[in-house]
This record gives sequence, C-alpha cells and structure tokens, in this order.
Amino acid sequence: MQNQAAIMYGTHDIRLEEVPVPEPGPREVLVEIEAVGVCGSDVHYYEEGRIGSFVVREPLILGHESMGTIVALGEGVTKHEVGERVALEPGVPDGTCRECRAGRYNLCPNVRFFATPPIDGAFANYVAIHEDFAFELPDNLSDDAGALMEPLSVGIWSCRKASIKAGDHVLVTGAGPIGLLAVQVALAQGATDVTITDVAPQRLKMAENTGATRAINVSEEPLAEAGVEVDALIECSGNERALNDGIRCIRPAGTAVVVGMGPGEESSIPLALIQNREIWLTGTFRYANTYPAAIELAATGKVDLDAIVTGYYGLEDAEEALQASRKDPANVKPMVIPASTQESDRG
Amino acid sequence: MQNQAAIMYGTHDIRLEEVPVPEPGPREVLVEIEAVGVCGSDVHYYEEGRIGSFVVREPLILGHESMGTIVALGEGVTKHEVGERVALEPGVPDGTCRECRAGRYNLCPNVRFFATPPIDGAFANYVAIHEDFAFELPDNLSDDAGALMEPLSVGIWSCRKASIKAGDHVLVTGAGPIGLLAVQVALAQGATDVTITDVAPQRLKMAENTGATRAINVSEEPLAEAGVEVDALIECSGNERALNDGIRCIRPAGTAVVVGMGPGEESSIPLALIQNREIWLTGTFRYANTYPAAIELAATGKVDLDAIVTGYYGLEDAEEALQASRKDPANVKPMVIPASTQESDRG
Amino acid sequence: MQNQAAIMYGTHDIRLEEVPVPEPGPREVLVEIEAVGVCGSDVHYYEEGRIGSFVVREPLILGHESMGTIVALGEGVTKHEVGERVALEPGVPDGTCRECRAGRYNLCPNVRFFATPPIDGAFANYVAIHEDFAFELPDNLSDDAGALMEPLSVGIWSCRKASIKAGDHVLVTGAGPIGLLAVQVALAQGATDVTITDVAPQRLKMAENTGATRAINVSEEPLAEAGVEVDALIECSGNERALNDGIRCIRPAGTAVVVGMGPGEESSIPLALIQNREIWLTGTFRYANTYPAAIELAATGKVDLDAIVTGYYGLEDAEEALQASRKDPANVKPMVIPASTQESDRG
Amino acid sequence: MQNQAAIMYGTHDIRLEEVPVPEPGPREVLVEIEAVGVCGSDVHYYEEGRIGSFVVREPLILGHESMGTIVALGEGVTKHEVGERVALEPGVPDGTCRECRAGRYNLCPNVRFFATPPIDGAFANYVAIHEDFAFELPDNLSDDAGALMEPLSVGIWSCRKASIKAGDHVLVTGAGPIGLLAVQVALAQGATDVTITDVAPQRLKMAENTGATRAINVSEEPLAEAGVEVDALIECSGNERALNDGIRCIRPAGTAVVVGMGPGEESSIPLALIQNREIWLTGTFRYANTYPAAIELAATGKVDLDAIVTGYYGLEDAEEALQASRKDPANVKPMVIPASTQESDRG
Repeated sequence: MQNQAAIMYGTHDIRLEEVPVPEPGPREVLVEIEAVGVCGSDVHYYEEGRIGSFVVREPLILGHESMGTIVALGEGVTKHEVGERVALEPGVPDGTCRECRAGRYNLCPNVRFFATPPIDGAFANYVAIHEDFAFELPDNLSDDAGALMEPLSVGIWSCRKASIKAGDHVLVTGAGPIGLLAVQVALAQGATDVTITDVAPQRLKMAENTGATRAINVSEEPLAEAGVEVDALIECSGNERALNDGIRCIRPAGTAVVVGMGPGEESSIPLALIQNREIWLTGTFRYANTYPAAIELAATGKVDLDAIVTGYYGLEDAEEALQASRKDPANVKPMVIPASTQESDRG
Repeated sequence: MQNQAAIMYGTHDIRLEEVPVPEPGPREVLVEIEAVGVCGSDVHYYEEGRIGSFVVREPLILGHESMGTIVALGEGVTKHEVGERVALEPGVPDGTCRECRAGRYNLCPNVRFFATPPIDGAFANYVAIHEDFAFELPDNLSDDAGALMEPLSVGIWSCRKASIKAGDHVLVTGAGPIGLLAVQVALAQGATDVTITDVAPQRLKMAENTGATRAINVSEEPLAEAGVEVDALIECSGNERALNDGIRCIRPAGTAVVVGMGPGEESSIPLALIQNREIWLTGTFRYANTYPAAIELAATGKVDLDAIVTGYYGLEDAEEALQASRKDPANVKPMVIPASTQESDRG
Repeated sequence: MQNQAAIMYGTHDIRLEEVPVPEPGPREVLVEIEAVGVCGSDVHYYEEGRIGSFVVREPLILGHESMGTIVALGEGVTKHEVGERVALEPGVPDGTCRECRAGRYNLCPNVRFFATPPIDGAFANYVAIHEDFAFELPDNLSDDAGALMEPLSVGIWSCRKASIKAGDHVLVTGAGPIGLLAVQVALAQGATDVTITDVAPQRLKMAENTGATRAINVSEEPLAEAGVEVDALIECSGNERALNDGIRCIRPAGTAVVVGMGPGEESSIPLALIQNREIWLTGTFRYANTYPAAIELAATGKVDLDAIVTGYYGLEDAEEALQASRKDPANVKPMVIPASTQESDRG
Repeated sequence: MQNQAAIMYGTHDIRLEEVPVPEPGPREVLVEIEAVGVCGSDVHYYEEGRIGSFVVREPLILGHESMGTIVALGEGVTKHEVGERVALEPGVPDGTCRECRAGRYNLCPNVRFFATPPIDGAFANYVAIHEDFAFELPDNLSDDAGALMEPLSVGIWSCRKASIKAGDHVLVTGAGPIGLLAVQVALAQGATDVTITDVAPQRLKMAENTGATRAINVSEEPLAEAGVEVDALIECSGNERALNDGIRCIRPAGTAVVVGMGPGEESSIPLALIQNREIWLTGTFRYANTYPAAIELAATGKVDLDAIVTGYYGLEDAEEALQASRKDPANVKPMVIPASTQESDRG
C-alpha cells in the first residue's frame, strides 16, 4: 500500500509526494479515497494561503469533499466492514463541548476538519476517519455523487436554516456549486418557485437544467427590477449587492441565509427593512446532521449531483484542478480522482 | 339564476330543492360551484346525523370541498373579478379571538365552517364567501383539483405538524383520501421513504401509484413485524391499533400526528415508549394557512389530485355520492358536479 | 360629555381643542382615557413631523400608550361592561390578510394604529376601540401601569424574538423605556445575567434598581472591552456602534434583536462573525399577542412599571410632556393624564 | 484515601463496603462526594430491583444526585482544578451517535448513567467523571443545592418541553420533588399562574411556600371541578387520572409533558380532545444541556433547592434514607452525606 498525496507547500505550490498510510485509531476506519471534489475553500488556500484567520503555515493536504472504500478497520469499529463504499463527513468534533452537546457540532471549537490548517485533507490515496463520520453509500450512487455529499450538505444546511416549506418561494443568489445545490434542495423540500441569479450564463443554464423556475442574469436585469418576492433568500455569492437586493425581495417574516463569504468582516444591510418586515437573517458555518439526508436525497433522485460535475483530474493534476473554476466559471465542480494517479504511477 | 341545493333533512334523507341565491355581503364574492368532493365528514352526517358534538338539527346543505367561478362581487371586494375560477376555503373565522390572533384560526371558536351545523355547505349552485377565503386557481388545474385543495390542506397540515424534512422517513396509516394525500405531501416536502398501511388492496395500489415507497396490507402483514422505523407517523385511519403499532415505529424525538377520528373520546397509547423516546404526539383539527401552498403544490405537479378522483355525480345523485365510498373502498373520492344537474334540469 | 384633544397641527404645534366624542361602532367600546405614556415615536412626530415613510400631513392626535375606563358599549359587545378599567392595544389589524392569518397581525398592511397618520391617538378624553383590543386591568395595577402595557409589550416582544430562556445571559443596549422594560422582561423569563449599556448615568441607575445584573456606561468603558458574553442582544438605542459591539458579544447560535430605529435605511454589521457563529439577527415592528402576558407580568409583580414613570402632565401640557425626555434623559417616561385637564377645565 | 460505598446486593439488601478508589481516566476528574439526594428511581431499584427493562443483576451502587470536591485530575483535564466544588451530571453519552449529534444526548443508547445497571452511582466517597460533566459550583450554593442540580434539571427539562413563556398558566400534577421543582422553574421562566395538585397536604404546603399560586388537594376537590385552564400541564405523579384530568385543563394548542412514570406500558388519554384542541403531548427522559442553567437559577435565587431538603443520612444509613419518603410523604428529599460516614468510621 502506497499513499500518494498532493501536498500544498505554499500558494501555487503543490507537490505530489508519498506519505505514510495512516494507522486507523480506535473506532476509526481506513478509507482508500476514490473521488474528491474541489471546493472554493481549497482554491482560496491555494491562491491566497488563507481564509480569514485560518492560515496555511505548514505543508497541508487539501480536499474535503471525498468518498472512498474502507480497506481496514481500527479497534472497536462496529458499523462498517472492509469493502464498503463510504462518503466522509470531513469534520470530527470533540463531542462533549457546549456546542456539541447542544447538537451544533459544526460550531465545536475543537473540531478537526479536513484541509483546514493544521488538519490534512483528502487529496491522497488513504485517510483514516472515525467510523461515525463515514456513511455507507448505496450502489446506485456514483463516486462523484458520494464525494459531493459534502457540498450537498452545505445546501441542505442552508435550506434548513431558511426553513423552506412546501409552497415556499425562494431566491438563491449565486450559481456556483453551493447555489446550484441549494436550488435543488429547496425544490426537494417543496419550494414551488425558485429563482436563481448570477452573471455567468452557463451557470444559470445549469440551474435551469436542474429545476430552477427562473434564472436572472443580473448583469443584464437588475434583481431590484425583476419583481421577485420570496419567503427565503439563500445568498451564495459573497456579494454585498446581491445580499442587499436579495433581502429587499423577502416577504414579511421571511428569512435570509448568508452562505457566501464576503471579502471583509463587515457588510452593509438594509436594517430598517429587516425591522419593518421582521425578517430573520443568519449565516451558515459548515453543517451538522446532514449526511444521512444528503445520501437519501441523492439516492432517491430528488437531487442530481452528477449534473454539476464538470471535469476530472488525477492527483498529479491537483493544481490544474484547483485553477479550473477560476479560469472558467462554467467549470463548476472539478473532481480529483486519486486512484487514477496511483494506478498510472504503479503502471 | 337558479340555485338548486341538495339539502339533508335527516339521516339518509337528502332532497334537491331550490333555495335563494345568496346575496354577497361586504367583501364577499358569489361563486357558482363547479365541483365538490365528498368528504368522510359529509358521510358521517348523512349516515349518523352527527360528528361528536356537532349534530344536524335543522336541514343542512353538505359539501365543503369546493371550487367554482365568481359570478358577482359584494361591496369592497378588491382581490377578485367576475369570471375568476377559485377554490373555496370553507371555514371563515372571526379574526379577532385569541386563537385567530395567534395564527391558529382553525381553532377559532366562532368559525363559520361549510356543512357544519348550522352553516350550509356547497352541494348547491351558488355560495357566497369572504374574498380572502377564495383563492384563484391557475388554468392548468382541473375543477376537481380545485375542489380537492381542501383535503390536500388536511394533508399539508398533517405534514406541517409532523415537521417533515428532507430525508425523513414517514409512516402513514390509512389509505383513504387524506392518507393518500399525506403520502404525496410528505414526498413533496422531501421525505425519502414513505410507508403506507391499509387493509384495502386497491387503496394501497393507489398509494404506490402516487409515490409511496412501501405499501403494507396490515391484514396480511402486521405492522409490528414489518421492521418500519420512521421520523413521523401520520395516523389517518382512526384505528387504535394502527395508532399504537404506528407509534412503536417512531424513532427517538419523532412525531405522531393523529388525523383520523376514532370512535370514542379516549384511546390507549404506549405512553412509556413516548416518554422513553421523547416522542411528540398531537392531533389535527382542520388546517390554517394552507391554501396558497396547496394550489402551488398541485400547479407545479408536486402533488397529483386528479389521481384520487374516482367518480362523478350530479346534485340529484348526492345520496349516491355519499354512499359510494362506504360501498366500495376503492371509491376513494367521489365528486359532485352541481352545474351538470343544473344543466340537465334546465334541458 | 366633552372630548378635549391635544391635536398636532405641525412640528412643535399642538393645540388643545374640543372634538366630537367618538360613537362606538359594532363590537367597539368607548373608553374615557385616564393615562397615556409619551413614546419616542410621539416625540419623533412632534419634532420631525415624520417617522420614515409615515408623515403627518393632516392634524393628528398623538399618544398610543393608553388606558381608561369603559363608559359605553357599541352593538354586539360581549366581553366588557361599563365601568371596567382597560388597557388599550393601539393597533387593530384587518384580521383576514396573509399576515393576520399567520398570527403576525403586527405586520398587517391594513392595521389601524393609534397616532400613526392618519389614525388619531389617545391624547384625548375619549376613544373608541374594538372590544378584543381592550384588556381588563386588575385592581392592583395603577393607571400608569395600565398605560405602560404598550411599551411593556415591546419589551415582551423583543424577549420573545430573542427566545430568552431560564439561565440565559442577555445584553440590552440602550436604557430608555424600552431597554429598561426589556431588562425586566428578560429577568422575568429566567435570564440570570442581564447587562445594560447607556451613556446616561441616571438611566443606568434606574436599570440597576429594576434588576440589571450589570450596568455599563459605554462613554466610560467601551463594551468591546467589558468581557460581556451573552445568549442574546436586545438593541434598544438605534446606535450602529452599540449594535456592532453588541453583536460581537453574542455566543454561537445566539440572537440579536434590533428594536431601536437607526437614523438611516442601512447599517453596517459584522456579517462574517454572524456567519461563523451562526448568529440570528432580526428586528421588531410593534408586537402581537402580548397584552394578556403584559398585564399578568405586572399584576404578579414580576415587572414593575411604576418604576419607570418620571412625570405627569395634563392634556394642555402635552407639548411639555413631548419635550421632557429630550431635555432630560432622566425623564424616561412622562405621562399625560387627560382627565386632570378635563377636571381643571371644568373647574 | 478510603472509598466506602453503600452497595445494593438485592432488594432491601444494602451493605457498606470498601471499594477501590477509582482511577480518573483521560479527561476525568476524581471527586470526593459530599452530598447525594435520594431519588425515586433509587427507591424503585431498592424496593423492586428494577425499573422497567433496567434490572439490577449484579451488586450496584445507587445514587445519582451528587456533588463533591475534586481531589485529583486525570490526564488532559483543562477545565477544573483540585479543590473545586462541582455538581456531577450523572450521564455521560458517547458523543457521536445519531442522538448525541442532534443534541439529544439524553437519548444516547450508549449513555453511561450513574446508578443504572450496570453503572455504579454516587453512594460512595469517591467517583470519577469526565470533566465536561462536572460543573463548578459557586460558593453561595450549599452542598445540598449542588446535589439537587440533578432533579432541578428534570424540572428545567420538563419546563423546556412545555415551552413555558412569560405570562403562561401552568398545571403541575404531583408534588413530589420533581413536581415541586417544576413549579419553581415554571415561575422562574415567567409563568404567572401555577397550580399544583397532590393528595398529601404537607407537600401542597411546601409547594405554596415555594411560590405555587394555587394548591389543590385532589382527594378533596376533584381537578375536573376546579376550573383550571392552562397553557401547559407537567404531569409528575405517574397517575393516569391526574394525566387525564390534567389534559382536560389544557387550552387549545397547549402542551402536556409527562414526567411521572406510570405503572404500565400503556395509558388511556383523551385523544379526541387532543385532536380538537391540537394539544401537544410528550414525555421526558432525563434531560440534556440543563446543568449550567440549573446552577445559575439556584445561584441567583430564582429557585430554592434547600427548601425541599427534608433529612440527612450517613452512608451507613442508606437503607433508611431509601425508605424515608415511602414511609412519610412529607419526607420529600432525603440526603445522603458520604463524608459524615467516612469521618465517623475513621474516628
């Protein structure tokens, strides 16, 4: 067993190296990684070396949207068997802090999250993870779909925060992978009218192909003039104007969920409107308790994850994968396939 | 304008008579009724002359699942026009009592509800209703679908009480019209596994045709042995054993919503289990704030109302319509079409 | 019966005039007003002639925090008798719109609210109101307390939005009448640690006298350096810095409720923090379903309304009353006593 | 260091024996126990040898309402120091299962709970516990109060489930220790009217002394005739008639929380009423996330725990303590003081 990994040594500096195969600890499983999605946060680390207060100071393996096959079991594992295909929930919290005990384990200050300094991620052949954070995948789901349970979780979490109910009208601003999946989840939860906005026509087209009721190119038609009125806004662009225009579309007592990260610490919002309409605004930080639902939504066809996959790369092409979506906005979700590298290397 | 009505004078005694066309009061619209579904409560009044403390003491027009076309406007109407097709929400509450003010207008002690003594219903050519309780129907919905917004509302209400979320597993006991629609709504809200039980094979078949994941004939396979485990139970049979077996299938912190009315005031439930699993149990009484969602769920094809319609009757055949479903459990939802009577009478 | 009223003809122009005694309509009661609190919104209209989009264009009677004694009953009144002391909930909604039906009648677009153009308020001897918006006062409550059910309602509403639970830590920024009452309500709901901030020492002292755990004069000690950590922020100052510093004190998954109105339409907020901690932010617009709770909280001594009353004025001194709190921040809650005017006028 | 323990060998068979002092594991603290309350469940094990499916098959140390002083720290402890007084939350869940991850750790199937076979409890001089389940006690709280954070947690949990809000009216049936504390917590959460029922005059008197608005001796005045109407029922007697009469007192949309365990698996309830009023019914199983609130409610004087303490016993008198409350219903809460035994033994 060889474990190759794409290690980030600095911005624009990723090297394919061999690292030790992890030893699964008590209740951990060892997983051979078969597919990893490239996330915007991976791109941020690669391009800027940091995301807010998280700074890459030591060599780091990126990648946290992953699935694979269990190849070994640590002591005390009872829920899995060797050979099982699993999606990996990439953040393992401490389980006893105030946030964990309240069910908000995504806010655990001691969480160990893949590809977040100093914890390594999944651009590698093997990773070990606590068995309760590996979720069996049904046969009818592709490897890509298995890896994309992670961004789907972000979409589910945003829709939960938005309390999408049957018959709701929803606005999603930003048609990147998260926005695209938020549209699908909103529809799966019973939303009957889902509008999406972006400036990239290919992304808007992708949204329409996966069920969006209406796609607005805000470089051509300002949202403020589009007559949109919704129960919930899910902001996925990180753009202050999108947030503000979006909030103005929200009905009394509706909800704004801010998923996209803006460039700064502060943002201006239409506070008087929020008061007069008693709108609720919140933001999301990762997700909690989403993987079982994510897998079932995909397995029952309510959400189509393969529809957003736009390219494949080996581990040795990790840099190319990390640059793909900034080069071309249509390249929404590049996938890294570690096993392909290993095989060619072995050949 | 002639207004024929099927008037119940007593159990098994319904007479087609002409009654005055109602004069629409302030903010009321006059509606020519085009379709009325027959509900189990209509059947109860017809067969037993009462439902619990509601007793038919004076002649009463039955029918409360109705739609039609607006033919006249009362003073101050601003939301509708003559010629508009509307679904009628059959209960108009007082709007100022404690329950109304809290948004629970279905519990308003002063509500005036169609076909509930002493308020007349919609087995007639014309009825008047407050404009805020008439909801415009899109062209792509059939008359039947328009009338069936009422039982669909019961289904929506039960799923709201059950807090069905994306990925939930749901058990619906009883495949009458409410159970069948609860299945569809649960799926529309993102449930990924919906089991239904009944003893009538035709009804179970209808449930499977409209999306149920699993249909169990409990006369052949006891629910207790079927290995069902769910987040929510929606009890639509009024059967104590179904309720008890159903509750035993609920996961910790899950919910039981009792929609079906049992024969007596009291029921035995597995209370120790409810305590140990911290299950929530509640019941439904009609519904509130469901019509807009109901219309959109049907209009977007997330729910198929035409799929449960099983027969048509003129006003003069109201008694036959009222007897249909007890004679044949496959006759899930007979429809009364008042206009057809009027036309043939006129002919 | 004579009905004197303090009528605002323009900014800084209030005249005492006789107006017709209102005729109570169906289900209305006629109330002789005995106490009216002066609210910041009254002061805004008096000083600036407007609050946001609400502009005083016609002569207007101010005052909406009122109580009195029922002196006549309109047709169909069943809940009250002549001679009963009542607190008046000053906004009567339409009861049938989308917001009313959902229980959010404070957001009813058709609400008729005292002292909000063009609806007259209670700086008068007599007003008529729907019986369901008059609430009987127990004998042990003072007239002042009866009138102050209105600002207490704002305090209750803000604490409900903040979901204050037993054991919570709460920060209230701004020690005006609303802030002072929010402190008391938070304590009554079980908060075990309530910090208040302001720049006026007298107001902070008043907060401490009514139970605040800690009072911070932010002109001396910046909130950011005070080490405050809370489950909920209730912002009552309308000050952007207070809002921002306050939000930074909120624990993960906590809540910020914005009650105070800022000067502009937009505000800057620490959005990245709101995202990272998944904080909820909302605002309040009046209140709904608070009067019964308000009366009982005061009647049982859990809240002390008399503690914030700081002066008395006759109707003829309405202008003086309206200027009182801006002249002296210690003059938190001036009261107008219409009957005293009437008596002296009669004398 | 000697560790004496009162070990239950069978029903009515408790022996004082020396056992090894536990070795604190990683992140565990070793606590010298100073006070332990006797709970009804201890009495059940002592008298019947079982509670439902939990059966005492091996010798077992009873006692789970405990506090003490930390005397040693295991590896990795960061939150506590030797010498600190702590209350012990007696159930340590696994932290990773479905229930734990959702914040419902009280429903964790793998929880290790004091004095629940086969886990030993606190009728001993020393116990070890995970540091996150030991909570520092402020100096102003007595040892008794520290131990009684456990039944107070049950009271808090029941009031949370009942969603007690400011101004609510509450009915508590059963004035044992849990009922008495539920009354106090309901008041602390803002309930303005709390009725308690029981058949023991001394217990009712104790309820009145700690704030109950009304105490009804149901052996003299049937609850059904007392005209009680409430937002929430908290059933603490385990008596089916109390539950039924109590449910009939609940207002539309109110809540029934069943805390008391009845003798059997099933109970009869007024289901038609629950449906017609859309009442919510649930039960409680232990509690989650209550200790911080419990300690603060007691420390701020909102709840008085010392008021329910009725007697003291050494470890050698554990049997007497276990028999005390069944012998005399006025003996609501006997306390076992292990250190007193140790001292006398050492003497």
